[in-house]
Amino acid sequence: MQLSRFTDYTLRVLFFVATNEDRLVTLAEIADYYGISIEHLRKVVHALSKSDYLATYRGKNGGIKLARPTSDMNLADIVVQAEGEQPLINCGQQMCRLTGFCSLQGALAEAQKAFTDVLRKYTVEDLLKNPKMRAELLNTL
Amino acid sequence: MQLSRFTDYTLRVLFFVATNEDRLVTLAEIADYYGISIEHLRKVVHALSKSDYLATYRGKNGGIKLARPTSDMNLADIVVQAEGEQPLINCGQQMCRLTGFCSLQGALAEAQKAFTDVLRKYTVEDLLKNPKMRAELLNTL
Repeated sequence: MQLSRFTDYTLRVLFFVATNEDRLVTLAEIADYYGISIEHLRKVVHALSKSDYLATYRGKNGGIKLARPTSDMNLADIVVQAEGEQPLINCGQQMCRLTGFCSLQGALAEAQKAFTDVLRKYTVEDLLKNPKMRAELLNTL
Repeated sequence: MQLSRFTDYTLRVLFFVATNEDRLVTLAEIADYYGISIEHLRKVVHALSKSDYLATYRGKNGGIKLARPTSDMNLADIVVQAEGEQPLINCGQQMCRLTGFCSLQGALAEAQKAFTDVLRKYTVEDLLKNPKMRAELLNTL
């Protein structure tokens, strides 16, 4: 079971911007920090901006900052949105003959709900209470 | 969030062999039923045979049958084994700088446990109680 790279990068961006919240950060800086392609990050930041997690400012002194408090960034919402609508098992891709009759779907849906329910207990604020994680994100470790 | 194609095929094979349990079925027959490459299925059946879910018999009249009752085929065990050791987010692949300091891992591990705990409530026997699913698998729908 895997989350997409897009979700991975979405969370990393939020952690970085949130920890450096006293200033505007740049795409290049995040790309450099994590060693990730700036093009991948651009899509992530665009999506996070559209959904009001981040605010972006253009221009020479432009950059990225949070658009809402980290206490209002629920892990379930972030992951569900970044993952999109893709199902756990893609029954349609190979046109499985059991589609419409298959009991597996109910069990998987129930399991996925349990997964999301756990994530719903956590916000980005909760995760960033970890001092070592904050120090690493501030490059002061 | 996605399960691998290998897991998808693993479950499909078990459903097919279990429903046709009064006879030996062949790889070609399963491949034809689902419209799946026989080479993919060969790996799936090999793994299921190694882990004592299936028994395979060589020769002209050979084929595949169950190696244990469907009541002893727990969904959590099947999915965990088919998915292998891959993590939900591959922190190591891009060598994320937060590895070792990241609070996300704990939340994800807890969520993944909740997911697996739900699957653990179901066996292949439970899923195959669905008469429409059985009929489709027997090609009698």
